[in-house]
Amino acid sequence: MNTHLDPDSPIGVFDSGIGGLTVARALRAALPNESILYFGDTARVPYGVKSPDTIRHFSTQITRFLLERHVKLLVIACNTMAAVAAEDIRSLSPVPVLDVIDAGARSAAATGRRIGVIGTLATVSSGAYEQALHAHASGLELHAQACPLFVPLVEEGWLDHPVTRLTAEEYLRPLLVHRIDTLVLGCTHYPLLKPLLSSVAGPAVTIIDSAETVAVCAAELLDGSGLRRMNPQPPPHRVFVTDVPQRFRAVAERFLDESLPEINFVTL
Amino acid sequence: MNTHLDPDSPIGVFDSGIGGLTVARALRAALPNESILYFGDTARVPYGVKSPDTIRHFSTQITRFLLERHVKLLVIACNTMAAVAAEDIRSLSPVPVLDVIDAGARSAAATGRRIGVIGTLATVSSGAYEQALHAHASGLELHAQACPLFVPLVEEGWLDHPVTRLTAEEYLRPLLVHRIDTLVLGCTHYPLLKPLLSSVAGPAVTIIDSAETVAVCAAELLDGSGLRRMNPQPPPHRVFVTDVPQRFRAVAERFLDESLPEINFVTL
Repeated sequence: MNTHLDPDSPIGVFDSGIGGLTVARALRAALPNESILYFGDTARVPYGVKSPDTIRHFSTQITRFLLERHVKLLVIACNTMAAVAAEDIRSLSPVPVLDVIDAGARSAAATGRRIGVIGTLATVSSGAYEQALHAHASGLELHAQACPLFVPLVEEGWLDHPVTRLTAEEYLRPLLVHRIDTLVLGCTHYPLLKPLLSSVAGPAVTIIDSAETVAVCAAELLDGSGLRRMNPQPPPHRVFVTDVPQRFRAVAERFLDESLPEINFVTL
Repeated sequence: MNTHLDPDSPIGVFDSGIGGLTVARALRAALPNESILYFGDTARVPYGVKSPDTIRHFSTQITRFLLERHVKLLVIACNTMAAVAAEDIRSLSPVPVLDVIDAGARSAAATGRRIGVIGTLATVSSGAYEQALHAHASGLELHAQACPLFVPLVEEGWLDHPVTRLTAEEYLRPLLVHRIDTLVLGCTHYPLLKPLLSSVAGPAVTIIDSAETVAVCAAELLDGSGLRRMNPQPPPHRVFVTDVPQRFRAVAERFLDESLPEINFVTL
């Protein structure tokens, strides 16, 4: 199946919207020589409140789109898709698939014993983090909390705003009552709230950013399979979106922390 | 064109999601004998941050869907669609079309002189309220403010929460600085925040709920055209959605303020 894989092929990174750009950013930092093909389903974002059937249907469409463009590795940069549709995506894909939940759970299980997970309603309801954490370590105590307001707060740019702090205090309270030692950011929007969440959670809590851990896993996988790109030319990057919404460039560049490459508009 | 219109036919009410149920509720209160066919595009909600082209494309699909079901009147119960796609919808429709923006602007122009409008980013950027207000009265002073966090706050159920109050104070501040006398709720989610907004805005500000005013316009239109339903049987109601997301029934019933009829799942 993998006989056609070429080290020069891009890594396909996908998300329901632009949150996954935090994963693209971490991949570019860890693997500066790799070409990244990013797909954001901006016409149908957010997935976090949709039904599992709809999320699986959309995820399958995106996977097919990326496989047609000959990616050598797929990175599910969306916790909701990873929680609900990872199995469907893996069963479709002849190339390796990494996802933010598995990477985040692996890192959290190596870090703490009383783990708090925050994410969208769909991610938290799926129980996917529980499953992944228990696969990586036993005897963990686990507490999960849905935080539906964090995504719109990040998109509004209120990263260090009294409203965001009050919201974080309310959402984190039940986790802090259980004296968690580790907090997994189970949504790709949340790394932008890291300083604020860190301040609300206090110094006793280690924060796990699954964007960073999935980038480490990607580097290991490419090295292990001889698929690292060695081409001395600067790697080309492409961004595909299903809508170019208002504020797109401003919000996207806040996530990516640099200027965007050319944006391609597509319909699935 | 209207020769086939039958008073027993339903009124088609549509929205990007479930916010338009506040309009369905107002229609049921004003016109208890009418049958309502509600369409919510829950798989692709929210529209408020999407591009005008995408919003027009989605609006056209929904209009066709409802016209195929022989509605006698279309009510655009979504400010974003009314702002961006009303003309496309009207040019497609052989039956009369009412929309929340025209109804809200008509009522506001009859009420005050210094008008504040709050809505989604797409509604506010479109300038549709300005255009509609100036069509109904001259010499009005107008101030508009996008409030992207209100929809997620309503869906979270934080209708009277310190976070919502703080957010409202921040969003309304620039309008209150201009000493508005009238505040138009330019989004169908906002009627659920009416008590809180009223308290933040103070007693000098009259709040216009376009769900209520569009229901008044619908009653006038049906009476004027002889299309009121006279059938003594209780009217049938139907709800069509493109996804049945998590929390759907709970959130929908909060909007409708009564139990939902059977929900039909459709794909456009």
